[in-house]
Amino acid sequence: MNAAQEFPFRSVLIFGMGMMGASLALAIRKKTAGSVRIDAVVRSTSSAAYIREAGLADQCVQVHAPEEVAGFDFSPYDLIVLGVPPRTIEALLPSFPACKAVFTDLSSTRRAVHAAFARRPDLDFVGSHPMCGSENQGAAHGQAELYAGRLCLLLCDEHARPQSIEAITQLWRSLGMHTGQIPVAAHDEVLAFLSHAPHVLSSLLTLWAESSERVRQSSEQTPIPITGGGFKDMSRIAGSNPEMWTDIMLTNGDHVREALRAFHGLLGELLQEFDGRTAPQWQEWFRSARLARNRLCGYEKDL
Amino acid sequence: MNAAQEFPFRSVLIFGMGMMGASLALAIRKKTAGSVRIDAVVRSTSSAAYIREAGLADQCVQVHAPEEVAGFDFSPYDLIVLGVPPRTIEALLPSFPACKAVFTDLSSTRRAVHAAFARRPDLDFVGSHPMCGSENQGAAHGQAELYAGRLCLLLCDEHARPQSIEAITQLWRSLGMHTGQIPVAAHDEVLAFLSHAPHVLSSLLTLWAESSERVRQSSEQTPIPITGGGFKDMSRIAGSNPEMWTDIMLTNGDHVREALRAFHGLLGELLQEFDGRTAPQWQEWFRSARLARNRLCGYEKDL
Repeated sequence: MNAAQEFPFRSVLIFGMGMMGASLALAIRKKTAGSVRIDAVVRSTSSAAYIREAGLADQCVQVHAPEEVAGFDFSPYDLIVLGVPPRTIEALLPSFPACKAVFTDLSSTRRAVHAAFARRPDLDFVGSHPMCGSENQGAAHGQAELYAGRLCLLLCDEHARPQSIEAITQLWRSLGMHTGQIPVAAHDEVLAFLSHAPHVLSSLLTLWAESSERVRQSSEQTPIPITGGGFKDMSRIAGSNPEMWTDIMLTNGDHVREALRAFHGLLGELLQEFDGRTAPQWQEWFRSARLARNRLCGYEKDL
Repeated sequence: MNAAQEFPFRSVLIFGMGMMGASLALAIRKKTAGSVRIDAVVRSTSSAAYIREAGLADQCVQVHAPEEVAGFDFSPYDLIVLGVPPRTIEALLPSFPACKAVFTDLSSTRRAVHAAFARRPDLDFVGSHPMCGSENQGAAHGQAELYAGRLCLLLCDEHARPQSIEAITQLWRSLGMHTGQIPVAAHDEVLAFLSHAPHVLSSLLTLWAESSERVRQSSEQTPIPITGGGFKDMSRIAGSNPEMWTDIMLTNGDHVREALRAFHGLLGELLQEFDGRTAPQWQEWFRSARLARNRLCGYEKDL
């Protein structure tokens, strides 16, 4: 972390100010003690009202249709952050006027965004996937500390300018993030395993548990739910925003499907040898899973 | 909750004092201000030393082999809590001397325990499955508040005495637990869905993620792990004690296998229709999963 690093921009436009964008505005305000100009563009009247009332932006403009952005004046900004979903970026980008600002975004799936920017080589773009979030939505849930200590994956196309890569790296580091570069193609495949397919499995877990008549019956007969901490943890992300996850399925469906096929295959293999497993074989299997978990999550090697 | 309820026993033997048994001793001490006698039986020398040093029991006896219990004098106790795994209960029970105490246990799988007690109809038994725990093991991790506010499932065979059922119910309620009765056969099937099979899926998740070469490569290239909060939550229980979970697989394997087969089947169906799914279909699917999760975990109906 280089939280001591200076914030590298002077005037920022946050395009779409939900929970992530509002958190970014709060983090920048805190880092720069208000010396950086932050403007916002949002779609809904209620968001605009909240942002104005809470003073989250110096100026907040409401936009009703993608075409409207063609008339915007982007000349005051040296950074434009797109805080809208990939499919909205696709719809907006053709109308964006040429400008000198560096662009970045906050998207969890990458290919659609990079394809859209490939059709606008005049725009100076470096992709960002800050790996943090919350199941809460909307500007009112912004937190100044959301980004601190977390990982931001940077995605640089072949025509990305070195000084822009450096500036976007410094943007996140100055807010306390760790940064790492990853190729666009690898990103969507890796995140299918580490985030998107697990989300589908978490959702399937709840539908599967309720598919058991015995579970439904028994759950009605106890004063509080039978689900313990393990089930609650595994099903937590099934409580997330359905619209956001639909967008992820539609922009990274092929990798999610392949990852789920691999899981289906491994589960099939496990079931085939299930009955023959001895105590030492189960112990060894659980132990290897614990080691894999510790490696993947960065925990101590073993208990 | 009836935490105001009186503790219904005067002299308790806790047979096997790991994290759960030590927590029980601490909770009883707290509830009864030390007026109830608590003795412990343990296997390891280090446990016995810790329990004596920490004063967790009035007396702590070490046992080396199951047969030794035949010579024990159980006449001072009106409650004997078996805090050892089901397969240890199976091994111990034939040697237990007849006595007037009420027996209960703390096991997560039920059939082996109840079959063992069916072969000892002279012992007065009501089964307990307190649904709480921790990934930490051993008496040193006991917490007086472990049971408070959680659910205890009570398992009563047909020959269970009504006054013993009442006393065991009062035992847990006096420590702040909610209680509910569930048939033994239903218990092991329901818990296969809500606890045991999810544990296998959590373990499989980590092995599956590491089976991807791209995941392994990318994980080496970032300063901190790429896994976010969702993956960490879903893989948390893969970090639990391999020995304990092996015991659960060996005593509830048939139900776990059937539950996993059902999951495998649902995942197969999802994969078959994966590519054809429209945005509204995904949204509806995620929304129904969120509702199922809220019902199963007792959360508000919807966000």
